[in-house]
Amino acid sequence: MRRARYLVAEGTEGVGKTTLCDILAARLMERGIEVVRVREPGGTPLGEAVREVLLHGGEMSDWSEALLFAAQRAELAERVVRPALANGKWVLSDRCYYSSLAYQGYARRLGVGRVWSVNRPALGETLPDLVVWMDMDAGAALARQQGRDRIGAADIAWHREVWKGYRSLWTSDRGRMMRVDAAAPTERIGERLVSVLEKRGWLRDC
Amino acid sequence: MRRARYLVAEGTEGVGKTTLCDILAARLMERGIEVVRVREPGGTPLGEAVREVLLHGGEMSDWSEALLFAAQRAELAERVVRPALANGKWVLSDRCYYSSLAYQGYARRLGVGRVWSVNRPALGETLPDLVVWMDMDAGAALARQQGRDRIGAADIAWHREVWKGYRSLWTSDRGRMMRVDAAAPTERIGERLVSVLEKRGWLRDC
Repeated sequence: MRRARYLVAEGTEGVGKTTLCDILAARLMERGIEVVRVREPGGTPLGEAVREVLLHGGEMSDWSEALLFAAQRAELAERVVRPALANGKWVLSDRCYYSSLAYQGYARRLGVGRVWSVNRPALGETLPDLVVWMDMDAGAALARQQGRDRIGAADIAWHREVWKGYRSLWTSDRGRMMRVDAAAPTERIGERLVSVLEKRGWLRDC
Repeated sequence: MRRARYLVAEGTEGVGKTTLCDILAARLMERGIEVVRVREPGGTPLGEAVREVLLHGGEMSDWSEALLFAAQRAELAERVVRPALANGKWVLSDRCYYSSLAYQGYARRLGVGRVWSVNRPALGETLPDLVVWMDMDAGAALARQQGRDRIGAADIAWHREVWKGYRSLWTSDRGRMMRVDAAAPTERIGERLVSVLEKRGWLRDC
């Protein structure tokens, strides 16, 4: 039987993660695959409460931010992602712990390894099968999406740091992470991803 | 010059932690020591917001709970405890990460080591000099304080588990942790602690 997969769109703001998840969800559902869509932060009642604190709660220490992200992620993993996968449903997520590694670990300089160490215990084996890094120049991405919240309002230098974080993760982890050029039409990126899933045999028995 | 110290009262609910902190604060201030009082969860604007979610936010996964506690603790360490100690002020706290080790690590069975691993990075060197475990029979402690919130309403079997967590921590960590009989008058416990501080030389230059 085909195993359910956990796929994640990652990248700085404005690169088209939500649109890519929409497209992928449609392509998968056309093949009879049940899909659960999630986003981080959020996706559970607790997660939405924490999202409010994170995005609109004012100044906080970098570690508090990292740990709040980890807390909502733990809830999402336990209440949504794990049960969905166990029931044969694919999970498509807008962000995962790779965001924390890039934003808090790299760009805020808490250390990628240390941020991973506070995320890992709660996640257990619930890790993405594929993380799609939507790579785009920070200026171009920001131009597509003006800051809607605390993090979005950060300046372009900050976004460049986050981008460097993603590049660093991608350089050291080619197994789980796949880079795509986010400047390409998102529809075409979606087609390419579906063909990657086919080549990996993940869509067999459709 | 006398070094500022970070002292913590620990134990299950109703054992008299707040009263002990009050008494200790008074004794220290009589000697001209500046004291900062804190409590967990709470003690900062972010911490109070997280406290609300923790105590009244409804059901959540055990790891979310542990990570929310860690998030408010990171904020408290960075904004309050570290600056106070750096300015020569003593910190008296009602609870610290030992609560997470006993409640989430031991009693909720997340693992003491794993809960420590999500708390440690944010704390750095900001660790208590002395953790006073106020040891009392769970039934007697509960009789003194009826449950005021989500955690307080848990049953006596749960409190016994937490007590076993504290005992386990105390058994393996006699360096930082000191056990006192919380059934004794709190005033007398306070006197005993002051004499311990004196014997350790922590009150010299008063």
